[in-house]
Amino acid sequence: MKIQDIVLTPVAFADPPLLNVMGVHEPFALRGVVQLVCDDGVVGLGESYGDLAFLDQVRQVIPELKGHDVFDLPGLQRKIAAVLGKAVFSDQHGLTGGFSNRKTIATVYSLFEVACLDAQGHFLGRPVVDLLGGKSRDAVDFSAYLFYKYGAHLGAEEDAWGEVTTPETLVGAARTMIDRYGFKSIKVKGGVFEPDQEIAGIRALAEAFPGLPLRIDPNAGWKVDTAIRVARELDGVLEYLEDPTPGIEGMAQVAAQANMPLATNMCVVSFDDIEPAFRQRAVGVVLSDHHFWGGLRDTQALSKTAECFGVGLSMHSNSHLGISLAAMVHVAAATPHLTYACDTHWPWKTTDVIAPGSLAFVDGAVAVPDKPGLGVELDPDALARAHEDYVRCGQTKRDDVTYMRRFVGSFEPNTARW
Amino acid sequence: MKIQDIVLTPVAFADPPLLNVMGVHEPFALRGVVQLVCDDGVVGLGESYGDLAFLDQVRQVIPELKGHDVFDLPGLQRKIAAVLGKAVFSDQHGLTGGFSNRKTIATVYSLFEVACLDAQGHFLGRPVVDLLGGKSRDAVDFSAYLFYKYGAHLGAEEDAWGEVTTPETLVGAARTMIDRYGFKSIKVKGGVFEPDQEIAGIRALAEAFPGLPLRIDPNAGWKVDTAIRVARELDGVLEYLEDPTPGIEGMAQVAAQANMPLATNMCVVSFDDIEPAFRQRAVGVVLSDHHFWGGLRDTQALSKTAECFGVGLSMHSNSHLGISLAAMVHVAAATPHLTYACDTHWPWKTTDVIAPGSLAFVDGAVAVPDKPGLGVELDPDALARAHEDYVRCGQTKRDDVTYMRRFVGSFEPNTARW
Ligand SMILES: [Mg+2]
Ligand SMILES: [Mg+2]
Repeated sequence: MKIQDIVLTPVAFADPPLLNVMGVHEPFALRGVVQLVCDDGVVGLGESYGDLAFLDQVRQVIPELKGHDVFDLPGLQRKIAAVLGKAVFSDQHGLTGGFSNRKTIATVYSLFEVACLDAQGHFLGRPVVDLLGGKSRDAVDFSAYLFYKYGAHLGAEEDAWGEVTTPETLVGAARTMIDRYGFKSIKVKGGVFEPDQEIAGIRALAEAFPGLPLRIDPNAGWKVDTAIRVARELDGVLEYLEDPTPGIEGMAQVAAQANMPLATNMCVVSFDDIEPAFRQRAVGVVLSDHHFWGGLRDTQALSKTAECFGVGLSMHSNSHLGISLAAMVHVAAATPHLTYACDTHWPWKTTDVIAPGSLAFVDGAVAVPDKPGLGVELDPDALARAHEDYVRCGQTKRDDVTYMRRFVGSFEPNTARW
Repeated sequence: MKIQDIVLTPVAFADPPLLNVMGVHEPFALRGVVQLVCDDGVVGLGESYGDLAFLDQVRQVIPELKGHDVFDLPGLQRKIAAVLGKAVFSDQHGLTGGFSNRKTIATVYSLFEVACLDAQGHFLGRPVVDLLGGKSRDAVDFSAYLFYKYGAHLGAEEDAWGEVTTPETLVGAARTMIDRYGFKSIKVKGGVFEPDQEIAGIRALAEAFPGLPLRIDPNAGWKVDTAIRVARELDGVLEYLEDPTPGIEGMAQVAAQANMPLATNMCVVSFDDIEPAFRQRAVGVVLSDHHFWGGLRDTQALSKTAECFGVGLSMHSNSHLGISLAAMVHVAAATPHLTYACDTHWPWKTTDVIAPGSLAFVDGAVAVPDKPGLGVELDPDALARAHEDYVRCGQTKRDDVTYMRRFVGSFEPNTARW
C-alpha cells in the first residue's frame, strides 16, 4: 500500500507554566502532526515534536516518501537516513539528553513509522498492538506527573491548577490529578528548588498517599554527592530516582551508592548509550520514548535488551496530544517487559487534535483501542484550530530558558547547580 | 482469528552419516510439523524438533491452545509457560548448549509462534516478513555447511557424497555443494579429527576457494589452549571461529587471545546468557536460531541486543525441512543486523514435506517468498510419506553417540577432548 500524499501540520496547544531545570513552559506547547494519505483512502497518523528545526528535517524527507510502500519500514529508514545525512536536530531545551545524528534519524523515522503502522492497521483491519506481537496487557498504567509551577503565565489570569511551589500545594495538585484520573503512582518534576525543599515535597506526598510509588526527576540538576545524599534521605520512599545527575559516569557513581534504581531519559537516549551504561551499571530503569528511540518496534527491542541486563523499563513523556498517547498505549501494551507505570503530560492540556472518546483514563490506565490502526481519528476542526494557535502564538521552538528570564531576569538553567 | 484444531505430525527424513563431536548422524533426522487449523480454512504451519521428549511437551500444550486467537501471542506464551511449569526438555545430543526451563518454554512457544504468524499472514494476505517490520533484504545468504562424514550408513550403500575425511574430499564436497547452490561462504563442522587435521582441511579450502569466508565449528571440542593455538594458526584464514571451547568463561579466555570473532550457538542459547557473555566479551557473533530463541520476534530482539554490544549475528541450523527454512528466511530478511551468511543443513536432505518451488537457492541465497504467510504449502502426500518414515525408522530421539558406537565401539563423545 503506497503513500500518495503527506500532510504535515504544525500545531500548538495551551500549556501551563510548569517549572523545570531549564526554566518554565511557555504558553503553548508545539507538536507536528503527519497524515500519510495512502491508496484506498487510508490515512496513517503520526505525531512528534513541533520545533521548527525538527519540522525542517521532516520537510526534507517528505518528498522522498511519496510512493513509498507503508509495509517497507526498512526502506523508509534507509530513505530517511539518506536524506538526513549527518544532520543533527538540536532540541535546544536539552531535557532529553541531546541529539546525535543517530538519534535525529531515529526521531524523524519514528514519526513516519508510527504513521505507517497506523496505515497498515487500517489496511489490514487490525489494531497496531497486533502488528507489534499482540497485547501483553489490556490497559496501560500511567503515573500522575506533577510539576512545580507558577500560578499564571505572564499577563494571564491564574490557571485552574494555581501556583505549586510548596509541599502543601504539591499534595493538592496530586490530589486533584489522582481524583480525576485515578493514577496509582506519582512522579514529581524536580530540579527547580533546592534539594531539601523537594525532599520535603516527596515526604509530604508519601504521607498524603501512603503506599503509592513515588519518583522524582530533577533532570540532572544535582551533583553526584547531592544525588547520593538525596538517595539516602529518600531510601524506602522512592520507587526510583530519575536522572539525579548528568552523564553515564555520574549516574554510575550515584547508582553504586543508592538503594533504589536510577531511571533515565537523559543519559541513555539511543542504542549507542546502552553498552557503556549497562557495563557500568549506571541505570536500573530506562525510560523509553518511541519519539526518539526509533519508533514502536525499536522501543520493543530496547525493552528486551534492558530485560537481558536486569534493567527495568518505563516510559518518558513530553507534552503531547492524542496520537502520541495512542502510540504509547499500543507499544506499551505490546511490550511484556514494561515494569513501571508510564509518564504522560496528558492532564496538563485542555485540547486535542483527535476526536474524543477513544482514549480514556480509568484507574490511571488507558485501555488499548481495539479499532484498526492506532484507533484514533483526527478531528479536522480541532486540527485547524490547533494549527491556527501555532501560527498565532509565534513560537517556533521550545525555549523554557528565555521565557523564564521574563519571570526571573537572572535565571540560569540548572545544570547540576546543587 | 481462532485456532480450531491442531495437528502435530512427527516426520523423519533420510540424513547422511555426518560426523560431529557427539558421533554420527543416524539414518533419519526427526522433525515435528504442526498445522494450526483456523477459522475460514486458514492453516498456519510450524516446524521444529522431532524428538519424542520435545513432542511430549508439545502434546501437553496442544489441548490448551484450541480456541486461542492467533494474534494473541503474549497469551500463547503465558498458556505454554503455565502448562510446562518447570519442565526442561533435554535434547540429549547436547549440540545446542543444553536446555533450561526458559529455553524449553521458548522452544515450544517458537513452534506455535511461527505457525500463528503464518496463519496471521494468510488471514491478512501479507508475507510474514511484513508482519515482522518489512524486508531489510530481498534474499538471504546461506553458507555451504560441510561435514566430515562416513561414506555410507551401516548396512547401506555409499551415498552420493561419499566419504569425507581428508582435505581433498572436503574440498570435493565443497565444490559439489557450491556448484549446486552457489554458496559464497563455507562452514566446516569440526571437532571430529585432531585439530591439526582439521586445520589442514581449512587450509585446503582456503586454497581451493580463495576469498570465500571460512568458518569451523568444533562444537566445543577443544581445550582453551588448543582453541587459542588454532585461532593463531588460522588467523587471517577464518571469518569466525565457532564454539571452539565449552562455556562462557572458556570462550572469554579464547576471545581475549584470538584475532577473529568467536561465534556461538552453545554458550549463548537464551536471553539469560546474554549479560554474562557480553560483560565478559566472550563472543563476537551469536548464532541465532528461532527454534530455541523463542520464535521470530525474539530472534529480532536478540539481533538488536547484539548490535548494541557490537556483537554480530548469524544463524544456526539443525537438520530441517522447508517450513523451517521459510521461517529462517522471513526472520532473516526482517532483521537488519544480520552480519553473516546463515547456516543451513538443506543440501544434505533429499526430501521435504512442502510443495516444491517456493524456496530456491540462487547464488547461495534464498529469495523471500512474497506470498501470504510463510509462503510455503504442505504437500500432503510428502507429509504422509515422511510420517511413515518416522514410524518405520523407529527413532524417537537424536542419538549420535550410540549410533557412532556401532561404527567405533570405544567411541566417547568429544567434550573438549583436545
Ligand atoms: Mg526525565
Ligand atoms: Mg555450532
